[in-house]
Amino acid sequence: MAEPATATQAAAPAVPQLKDELDIVIPTIRNLDFLEMWRPFFQPYHLIIVQDGDPSKTIKVPDGFDYELYNRNDINRILGPKASCISFKDSACRCFGYMVSKKKYIFTIDDDCFVAKDPSGKAINALEQHIKNLLSPSTPFFFNTLYDPFRDGADFVRGYPFSLREGVPTAVSHGLWLNIPDYDAPTQLVKPLERNTRFVDAVLTIPKGTLFPMCGMNLAFDRELIGPAMYFGLMGDGQPIGRYDDMWAGWCTKVICDHLALGVKTGLPYIYHSKASNPFVNLRKEYKGIFWQEEIIPFFQQIVLPKDCTTVQKCYIELAKQVKEKLSKVDPYFDKLAEAMVTWIEAWDELNPTGSSVTNGKAK
Amino acid sequence: MAEPATATQAAAPAVPQLKDELDIVIPTIRNLDFLEMWRPFFQPYHLIIVQDGDPSKTIKVPDGFDYELYNRNDINRILGPKASCISFKDSACRCFGYMVSKKKYIFTIDDDCFVAKDPSGKAINALEQHIKNLLSPSTPFFFNTLYDPFRDGADFVRGYPFSLREGVPTAVSHGLWLNIPDYDAPTQLVKPLERNTRFVDAVLTIPKGTLFPMCGMNLAFDRELIGPAMYFGLMGDGQPIGRYDDMWAGWCTKVICDHLALGVKTGLPYIYHSKASNPFVNLRKEYKGIFWQEEIIPFFQQIVLPKDCTTVQKCYIELAKQVKEKLSKVDPYFDKLAEAMVTWIEAWDELNPTGSSVTNGKAK
Repeated sequence: MAEPATATQAAAPAVPQLKDELDIVIPTIRNLDFLEMWRPFFQPYHLIIVQDGDPSKTIKVPDGFDYELYNRNDINRILGPKASCISFKDSACRCFGYMVSKKKYIFTIDDDCFVAKDPSGKAINALEQHIKNLLSPSTPFFFNTLYDPFRDGADFVRGYPFSLREGVPTAVSHGLWLNIPDYDAPTQLVKPLERNTRFVDAVLTIPKGTLFPMCGMNLAFDRELIGPAMYFGLMGDGQPIGRYDDMWAGWCTKVICDHLALGVKTGLPYIYHSKASNPFVNLRKEYKGIFWQEEIIPFFQQIVLPKDCTTVQKCYIELAKQVKEKLSKVDPYFDKLAEAMVTWIEAWDELNPTGSSVTNGKAK
Repeated sequence: MAEPATATQAAAPAVPQLKDELDIVIPTIRNLDFLEMWRPFFQPYHLIIVQDGDPSKTIKVPDGFDYELYNRNDINRILGPKASCISFKDSACRCFGYMVSKKKYIFTIDDDCFVAKDPSGKAINALEQHIKNLLSPSTPFFFNTLYDPFRDGADFVRGYPFSLREGVPTAVSHGLWLNIPDYDAPTQLVKPLERNTRFVDAVLTIPKGTLFPMCGMNLAFDRELIGPAMYFGLMGDGQPIGRYDDMWAGWCTKVICDHLALGVKTGLPYIYHSKASNPFVNLRKEYKGIFWQEEIIPFFQQIVLPKDCTTVQKCYIELAKQVKEKLSKVDPYFDKLAEAMVTWIEAWDELNPTGSSVTNGKAK
């Protein structure tokens, strides 16, 4: 488990599921050699590459992949003044890919993530597991002690109410990481050698009312169900904070999923995270977040969305309003963020007009 | 994993932890041959055996175990009229053992549970893992995606608020089962051949506000922190319901733990559950519960305990009051149960007078 997989070819499924209904979104500043290892699993799918940093640089994509690539110039051209809501010089830019996709599902992965092995040594097709997670229901209203009851060989245990066994649609599948765990800068500094070698063979629904730290490294979601909540905020260039893009999206998403009775799963699949980022650089990016999250999280824990917030967009606009009202006192940054949240929804709706067809024809 | 362990001797720890602070409570109707397999793990500890059914029958306990045994005559003698709160002809009688114990910790196990093996083939010392769970904090206020952050090789992930990393004291450790899963009668009938072979290498805190189906088969708890909430209700002889004893205790316990900021963990350790009980018999015992739980669970989900409920006893008496008020309309049984809950607390306090010493001298 401490090594990435080497042979992945044999492990690819004969018929890739959701081939025409899922985009893989990759934010990057470098050549995408890491795709070689993922080739048997990713090649059937369409990639959306969001190039961060200098737009004049050419990103090399290995032959044979079907992709579209957007750099900063493209983002500015497509969104015009609304491009201000998309972060620059930060992997938060990935959410532009969610917005331009026309598919029902998104899988997003970082370019330092490789194929992990399960305890038997078999290469893990992370995408296939995410699809399984997304296509089976979630159970946010009561905890099942044998974990995902929809998995082969498992079920609801004695005492699980029968009325809740249908479950709810799954909006988010949050995958984990072997090797380098997703630690904050202080923990990285204190435990520079810690590696995650524990393969926990479970998927579980995060219960209603419980927040979690959503990591964007290995993440899939149903764009139709929750897409507009997957805004990765204002990070990086010109902003006082970084490395909280996915956390922000996670808090907003979870609160909205809870309100709309949608499910969020975490656990399998694992990817192999190859390289720890620099903890000193990370500390500079994170340190305001370390203070702010102490106020942001109680804010999200107490949020009540009004009953008339019946769509993700309406929920998100209401969230933006409450962020402005209640978090601006923490720092003027949240004023700016609340405005960007509104801009994000405007841009989303512009690129995704109501009634426009999506691949499977089930657009709301 | 589908077989119980055979050699357990080598796996016993040199110094058994909490030897003088923990009792093992076993409800039974038969000779306790199953203890042979547990000998290396259990022998250092004191056993409390609660004999169910015919008190004239002699229960054989293998040589070398230190135990006290109570049959129905003993329970009647010790509790007098208050013995009415202890169930007869049902494993719910085990909670009498919690009440007479003078130790800080309880581990309770069914007599059809054997030593399981981990994936490497090593015998699992279930008690040792429960003790680890109880002696390390819980994290009920925010979900940690790498599971128990206090475990070796794990920690809190990026985005976990630092103010919550101290955790809270752990009151309950709920262990799981390989081989025969703990299914209700309908699931047993539908899936007679299903076996649990999946070893999930995780312990996690059940978040605040989330209820779970607590199984009494493989369970440990801190008697000082939560003991009086571990009442297994009125089941079996003369009652309209069975097999909901542990569920009832679990709902009450979780609601009180949430109110008092105590933790409940589930996951490791596994035991090997050898024999499925008869699904037809189970259905007869359970069927009212299958209906009732659809009203009981929403009842427990909406409970708010007043701030002045600062002890488990006060919380429990308040729960009894609310059960009488709100569940009596479901069935007159709940009137009787609410009264038994009060009797239970009276009996508990009689056997455990305030200020009486417990082994570690930390009685509240």
